[in-house]
Amino acid sequence: MKRFAIGVDLGGTNLRVAAVDDAGRLLEKTARSMRALGGRDAVIRQLCQDARELAARHGSAGTCVGVGVGVPGILYLEKGVLRRSPNLPGWENFAVRDAIASQLGLPVRVDNDANLAALGEKWRGAGRHVASLCLLTLGTGLGGGLILDGKIWHGFLGMAGEIGHIPVVENGAPCGCGSRGCLETEVSATAIVRKAQALLAAGATPALAEEVRRGERGAPLTAELVYRVASAGDRACRELFDSFGKYLGLALAGLVNVLNFPLYVIGGGVSAAWDLFSPAMFSELCARSYVFAEGSTRVARAELGADAGLYGAAALALGSAA
Amino acid sequence: MKRFAIGVDLGGTNLRVAAVDDAGRLLEKTARSMRALGGRDAVIRQLCQDARELAARHGSAGTCVGVGVGVPGILYLEKGVLRRSPNLPGWENFAVRDAIASQLGLPVRVDNDANLAALGEKWRGAGRHVASLCLLTLGTGLGGGLILDGKIWHGFLGMAGEIGHIPVVENGAPCGCGSRGCLETEVSATAIVRKAQALLAAGATPALAEEVRRGERGAPLTAELVYRVASAGDRACRELFDSFGKYLGLALAGLVNVLNFPLYVIGGGVSAAWDLFSPAMFSELCARSYVFAEGSTRVARAELGADAGLYGAAALALGSAA
Repeated sequence: MKRFAIGVDLGGTNLRVAAVDDAGRLLEKTARSMRALGGRDAVIRQLCQDARELAARHGSAGTCVGVGVGVPGILYLEKGVLRRSPNLPGWENFAVRDAIASQLGLPVRVDNDANLAALGEKWRGAGRHVASLCLLTLGTGLGGGLILDGKIWHGFLGMAGEIGHIPVVENGAPCGCGSRGCLETEVSATAIVRKAQALLAAGATPALAEEVRRGERGAPLTAELVYRVASAGDRACRELFDSFGKYLGLALAGLVNVLNFPLYVIGGGVSAAWDLFSPAMFSELCARSYVFAEGSTRVARAELGADAGLYGAAALALGSAA
Repeated sequence: MKRFAIGVDLGGTNLRVAAVDDAGRLLEKTARSMRALGGRDAVIRQLCQDARELAARHGSAGTCVGVGVGVPGILYLEKGVLRRSPNLPGWENFAVRDAIASQLGLPVRVDNDANLAALGEKWRGAGRHVASLCLLTLGTGLGGGLILDGKIWHGFLGMAGEIGHIPVVENGAPCGCGSRGCLETEVSATAIVRKAQALLAAGATPALAEEVRRGERGAPLTAELVYRVASAGDRACRELFDSFGKYLGLALAGLVNVLNFPLYVIGGGVSAAWDLFSPAMFSELCARSYVFAEGSTRVARAELGADAGLYGAAALALGSAA
C-alpha cells in the first residue's frame, strides 16, 4: 500500500501546502499570501482546508498518513507549541499541532522551518547521498539546520542550528540577537543592503547610485539589485560579495573543523549570488580548515529551492528521510 | 557476573594503563615515561605487559572484557590504524589495534584521546547527568571531543571535534594547522607563553620579568608561572587571562548557538586557571549567545583530570558509557 503526506510551510509571508508521496514525488502544491488570510485562526482554517483538499484529490496515491508543518520559530517540540516566532506575531505559545490535528483528525508533527528545509535537502535534494549535513539558508537573515545520521539535531532546548549567530567579526555590526558581528550581520540580504547603503553614502558606487535613482519610481535598494550591479562589473559591489564569501567561508571552516560532516548545503534566495561569493568562500575555507583541504568535504548549492521545507515537512510526517 | 576493562592513554609524554570496572571504579593505574620506553615496539610490549598484569591482578573484579586505547592523532577507526599523529612521530599508518590484540588475545578498540576524555567525562565526570556534551581540553594546544546522545561523534573522516581550529581572530597569529587566529592560538598554554613573551619584550610586566630572572637557574617561562604572577595581582598578566577567557567565550558562543548541548566541559592543565579566565569567558558567552543567556546551558570544569581518558578508554571497551 502506498503512502503520502501533507507538507506545510507556514511562513511569515506565505502559507504553502503540498502533497508528497513516500517516493518523494511532490504531487501538488498550493500557495497563499499570509497577509490576505488575516489572523491566526483564519490561517489554520485555510491550512486545514488546503490539506483536506489535497488529501482527497490524491487519494489514489495511497493513504494520507499525516501532516508535517514547518514554522519559523522556536518550538516546544513534544507539545507542538510555538514558543517564540518573530515572523509570526501573535502566535506565541500557540498549540499549532493540536489546533491542526483537531480539525483534520490526522497525526500532525511540527518542527522549525530551517530544520525541515535541511531534512528536505537530505531526503530529496543535495544531501540525498549523505547521512549528515548542515544547511545554511541565506535570506533576510541566515538560518540553519543540522541533519545527523539522517535525523534533525534539535539540541536539548530545540534551539540547535543557529548558524546565523556564530560570531565572525569581533567588533562587528549589532545583531538582532543582542550580540555583534554574528554571521548573519555579514552574510544575508540585510547585510548586503546595509553595506550597499554605506557604499552609496560614501559615493563609492556610481553605478548602483544610478540604478537606485532609476528605481525610485518603484524598486527599492535590494540585495538583488546590488547583485545585478556587481555582475555588470561594478568593483565596489563586487567587493561586497567577496567579503560576504569570505565570512561565509570563515564560519564554514569552524563548522567543518568541529562537525566533520561530508556536506554543507547553501540555500535560500541569496544563494543565487553563488557565482559572485563562492570563490572567496572556497578560498577562505581552504585556508582555514585543513579538514576541508583534505579534499572530501563538499560545499554545494541547495537543489530544492523554496520547496525544501515542503519536502522536509512531508518527510517528517512520513518518517521516511533516513 | 561482573566485568571490567583495561583503559590505556597512549600519550606523547606518558603511557598510562588502568583497570576500570563496569561500575566506573578505577581499580588501579600505572604510568610510565614514553621517552624511557624507547621506540614504538617497546611501547606496545610494555603496554601489553601492564595490561596483562592489571587484568590478572583484578581477576576478582570479574571478567576482563577488553582493552580501550586512546591515541593523540587521527585514526582509520574501523581498522584501528593511526593515520596521523604529530605527537607520536614514527607511528604513522601503524596498526595500533592489531598490534595490541595479537599480543593480548583480547578485543581492542582504539580512538582519539580527546574523544575518549570526552567519553570519560560523560560516563563518570562532569557529564554523567547529560546525554550530550562538548569537552574542550586546554593544554599545550586545545583539543576537543563531542558526545552526542551518549556516543562519540567522529564525523565522516574521524576528524570531528577540532575545536582548537575554530577561527576566532580574523588576522590572528599563525596556527600549526596552516590557518591564522584559530582558537588555540588564543586559548592554550602556548598562547599564554607567546603573549607573555611579548609583554616581557615590551617591558610591560616587571613582576613577570623578575620571576623569569629568578627562574633562570632552572624554571623556564611557563603558563603556570604567568598564572602565578597574574594571581599575585600583576595587571598585564591578568589581562592576558581576560583575553584568554574572552576568546574562549566567543568560541563557546558559536558552539552553543549551533549545537545547543546542555553542557560544555573545560578540562586540561590550563583549566586550573579557571578563576582568572572564567569571568571574561562567561561575560563574552552571555553577550554573544542568546541561547546561553536563556539560562539552562552549563559550562563547567572537568572532574576527572588526567584520568578522563582512562575512564573513556575503559568505557569504550566496556561499551558502557550510555
